[in-house]
Amino acid sequence: MPEPGLRRWRLLIAYDGSGFRGFAAQPAAPTVAGALADAIARSARLADPPPIVCAGRTDAGVHARGQVAHVDLPADLPAAYDLKKAVNRQLAPAVVVRAAAPAGEGFDARHSATARHYRYLVVNAPVPDPLLAPLAWHVADPLDRRAMTAAADALVGEHDFRGFCRRPPGSGADEPIVRRVTSAGWSTGPCTLLRFDISASSFCHQMVRSLVGALVAVGRGRGNVATMVAQLRAGTRTGAAQPAPPHGLCLESVSYPEP
Amino acid sequence: MPEPGLRRWRLLIAYDGSGFRGFAAQPAAPTVAGALADAIARSARLADPPPIVCAGRTDAGVHARGQVAHVDLPADLPAAYDLKKAVNRQLAPAVVVRAAAPAGEGFDARHSATARHYRYLVVNAPVPDPLLAPLAWHVADPLDRRAMTAAADALVGEHDFRGFCRRPPGSGADEPIVRRVTSAGWSTGPCTLLRFDISASSFCHQMVRSLVGALVAVGRGRGNVATMVAQLRAGTRTGAAQPAPPHGLCLESVSYPEP
Repeated sequence: MPEPGLRRWRLLIAYDGSGFRGFAAQPAAPTVAGALADAIARSARLADPPPIVCAGRTDAGVHARGQVAHVDLPADLPAAYDLKKAVNRQLAPAVVVRAAAPAGEGFDARHSATARHYRYLVVNAPVPDPLLAPLAWHVADPLDRRAMTAAADALVGEHDFRGFCRRPPGSGADEPIVRRVTSAGWSTGPCTLLRFDISASSFCHQMVRSLVGALVAVGRGRGNVATMVAQLRAGTRTGAAQPAPPHGLCLESVSYPEP
Repeated sequence: MPEPGLRRWRLLIAYDGSGFRGFAAQPAAPTVAGALADAIARSARLADPPPIVCAGRTDAGVHARGQVAHVDLPADLPAAYDLKKAVNRQLAPAVVVRAAAPAGEGFDARHSATARHYRYLVVNAPVPDPLLAPLAWHVADPLDRRAMTAAADALVGEHDFRGFCRRPPGSGADEPIVRRVTSAGWSTGPCTLLRFDISASSFCHQMVRSLVGALVAVGRGRGNVATMVAQLRAGTRTGAAQPAPPHGLCLESVSYPEP
């Protein structure tokens, strides 16, 4: 709930993650939240940049087309204040506010979200594609798409994803990290592009990149459905494939309950 | 024809034009041809960077997926010299050699070409798309696609395109610049993406960007098929729309006669 005198705004945001150290604000590092908060503070003449809460805290280099966030701003802002226009004038095209409006009663960008949808792009070709290079992981080895699809199928459902997460600092090593994956699968885009789409109620840290790293290893012939399931059961990253690089990942959208 | 002691190579090249002042080599400016020639000279241990001849001399900031070029290299290069690998190791992913092989008898990348195929991307949405920003022109005004399609139809055929070209220095102002456009049309891509594909035996300088500038003006309601045809007939750029920006344009492919 916003504090007295504040009103909550709901934002729909897209960004090119290349130039940022992730979404979450950090002192003395360029972050999406930092850039947004500064742009809002500057245009709304606030004394301090307001905290910004998002649905999916994307890592350094990860992109978004449909990030959702909320920010609490003074209820007495001038009626003429156009947050979307004010921010886009300062930050577009690296960061773009696609929509901004007063949030509904009880809305919290993080806690109200019921699902997050990510897409990971792979260019599977002998040589990279210069125009897709900022947005897709180039994998030169021929990939076995059928094996990758079978392994992706094994991820759907409720599992302990400890073996595919960067553990939050201070958490016990044998604590399960259970997430419900509602869909996960590969599709073929134009030319040599492979798309991995995955949806879950929520994700743990580096989960999508860890899963894509493991799936591409399967596609290279270094594993199969059984090794994927074994890693899920083992709950350890020992022997796991490297996480896929961040620049292929994009937060596509976030789901909320119908109002 | 290559000079005695030289052998002609045929190259298929892709590049992100953002960092280059166009394809053609220029002293003291980063160009695609300059980067390629330096990379070849370095890896093949040539005394001088070899001249590179291309099918479509793209302007500063214009991209290519399917540029074709030739370069004449010493016939006695070591058999182990792998031009594609050697160049890609140095220049990828900004510039990528997709294929390199000895050219067929009489091949000339520029003069043997029978058609060039360009694509221009427009994002037509109220706000820009951060992930497409390097590759597409963002037009916020709603565009009338039907009017743009009708105007594009009027371009097909053999016309004097003086009114849509940057005139080569030294050419007479009343000299016609006739080109044969074999196809030109808009299609709708995913989301808010509009694609303009145009093919011609050859293009004059800034022709595609001038045409897209004029077509988008039509889409904004500032003109129609009749004004498009009038500008073709008038043969002058006076009163013409600004050329579309270079970063939306890509040389997709080049056609040659079957061997």
